[in-house]
Amino acid sequence: MEYRKIKDDEDRDADVVEADVESLRGKSLSGVSLNNKNTLGSSFGDRSKWKIKSIVTLALTLLTSSQAILIVWSKRAGKYDYSVTTANFSVEALKCALSLAALARTWRSEGVTEDNKLSTTFNEVIYYPIPAALYLVKNLLQYYIFAYVDAPGYQILKNFNIISTGVLYRIILKKKLSEIQWAAFILLCAGCTTAQLDPSSDHVLQTPLQGWIMAIIMALLSGFAGVYTEAIMKKRLSRNINVQNFWLYVFGMLFNAIAIVVQDFDAVMNKGFFHGYTLITTFMILNHALSGIAVSMVMKYADNIVKVYSTSVAMLLTAIVSVFLFNFHLSLAFFLGSTVVSVSVYLHSISKIQK
Amino acid sequence: MEYRKIKDDEDRDADVVEADVESLRGKSLSGVSLNNKNTLGSSFGDRSKWKIKSIVTLALTLLTSSQAILIVWSKRAGKYDYSVTTANFSVEALKCALSLAALARTWRSEGVTEDNKLSTTFNEVIYYPIPAALYLVKNLLQYYIFAYVDAPGYQILKNFNIISTGVLYRIILKKKLSEIQWAAFILLCAGCTTAQLDPSSDHVLQTPLQGWIMAIIMALLSGFAGVYTEAIMKKRLSRNINVQNFWLYVFGMLFNAIAIVVQDFDAVMNKGFFHGYTLITTFMILNHALSGIAVSMVMKYADNIVKVYSTSVAMLLTAIVSVFLFNFHLSLAFFLGSTVVSVSVYLHSISKIQK
Repeated sequence: MEYRKIKDDEDRDADVVEADVESLRGKSLSGVSLNNKNTLGSSFGDRSKWKIKSIVTLALTLLTSSQAILIVWSKRAGKYDYSVTTANFSVEALKCALSLAALARTWRSEGVTEDNKLSTTFNEVIYYPIPAALYLVKNLLQYYIFAYVDAPGYQILKNFNIISTGVLYRIILKKKLSEIQWAAFILLCAGCTTAQLDPSSDHVLQTPLQGWIMAIIMALLSGFAGVYTEAIMKKRLSRNINVQNFWLYVFGMLFNAIAIVVQDFDAVMNKGFFHGYTLITTFMILNHALSGIAVSMVMKYADNIVKVYSTSVAMLLTAIVSVFLFNFHLSLAFFLGSTVVSVSVYLHSISKIQK
Repeated sequence: MEYRKIKDDEDRDADVVEADVESLRGKSLSGVSLNNKNTLGSSFGDRSKWKIKSIVTLALTLLTSSQAILIVWSKRAGKYDYSVTTANFSVEALKCALSLAALARTWRSEGVTEDNKLSTTFNEVIYYPIPAALYLVKNLLQYYIFAYVDAPGYQILKNFNIISTGVLYRIILKKKLSEIQWAAFILLCAGCTTAQLDPSSDHVLQTPLQGWIMAIIMALLSGFAGVYTEAIMKKRLSRNINVQNFWLYVFGMLFNAIAIVVQDFDAVMNKGFFHGYTLITTFMILNHALSGIAVSMVMKYADNIVKVYSTSVAMLLTAIVSVFLFNFHLSLAFFLGSTVVSVSVYLHSISKIQK
């Protein structure tokens, strides 16, 4: 990876307490901190790369787990009465705005360069609609799978995503995982599923063949979208991440606009776009936007494997935090699944990716 | 390990079909095949060691899983109305008799040597009562633990045995396990427990502190007995295994005789020693005796780690066989647990024990 060398001394702010965060500000976390005074260009060491990777991974983990907590909170507060499609559109619009704001700062401090200019070529932008299109197809399929599987069953089947991401990461990005990393990946899938078991989970085994096939197709679509996004983000490493994000999110807005027209046109026309939005809805939109940016950063500075680990650990964190927040009861299956996931993370961490 | 070189050509029997078994007969499987025409003494290659290790491990796995199937069968056939203590005594007596029969053959073909003579010294025999005494204490404690935990809960807590065996194997036998092997061992424990989960398993989490402490003490006793037996068997590798077994089982008989007197004296006096024995009881005693001998052989030619893997895989095999025999229903937890156990076996197999 190539990053531009920076001198941090020039722009230290008094309000940033932690030295580690300070040294990172303006390097690559600019997408989140909006402190983008420097852009990517030349190289810095492995230690810095590792630091960025750790921080974006941690950010994604914390944002994902707080996301789930917000969902539980909103469910406890009552039924959703806002339209999900407008919320999804708002998330994309907010991400787009945040990317533009970060870019504006970069332009002010660095000037417009080949790597941070917003204008693009057909050859560059042609790939950007694909992840958003894949997610749209996946979200449409989601309505049909519930004819064969109930919601808790679908939560269980979604763990196929872990395996599909690993397989597509191997096939499309041509990155090899070591034997131990494959073993760890299978364990991650088994551990996450175990942690989600409840007395009614055995229903899943009665899923008809169509349900299994759709679950596998959806896992492949989701895995493919993730792997494709990584390919886009890494195709030109020196390209400013905020420009890449901007174009990704523009197409995200476009496809979500189509979803609004198809599904919620009447409701939006009659009740208004923001009907039913509450404080929690606003928090959820903000959280989803930040999580989305964190995912982009993990794709650029780490990879899909890290993303899968991050969101899996987030799932366990959510459950633990929910014990304190909502008096959740942790099952024996949760402890066993968490143990397996922990061992999986350990095994992954002790074995290097063979590239 | 030192074994005496043998010439198999001299004693091939027409009734032994398989070449592998044939070449092993008289080497070290003599304890089971009772074809002990040769005793241990000089060395043979790693391949032979591996072969013996594999065969005794396979034998233990199959015997352990058929043991569990016999227990299910006997439960289906009706309640036990024989005394468990007399059955345990019969198992020890049968093992003793089998060891003596194997020794008699050895003496006839090889003559009595320093390694295969039955007579022993105080210094040698002093260690032999300890495993039997530990099991006796453990069996007595077993009555008390049920004041705190129900039977299915106890089945779950018994998986502590896996961890205690690993820890004591490390501490007492001073054999190191690699990081990956430790990870695999934790997975084995988590996987076995997961495979045994049923909707009522969460009760275990309500076990009072005394129950946890007793479960841990029992796991330590059981692990200690296993590790101690391995130490005895390996202390003098050239010593004939049947002599070692004979003395172990003599003390087994002694301690089980004490158990009969303490628990079932009146019943045995009034109804007779073999009261209530059926064909299934006889099969179970025979199976337990052969399994016991297989355990001894695994201790001598392999180790406690192999034993734990072997009996864990046997547990899964039993469940799978029970689907066909008794129309058992396999749960999602069983599939997940089996996956974790399989990955554990794989991880253990790809990493060598660091001695």
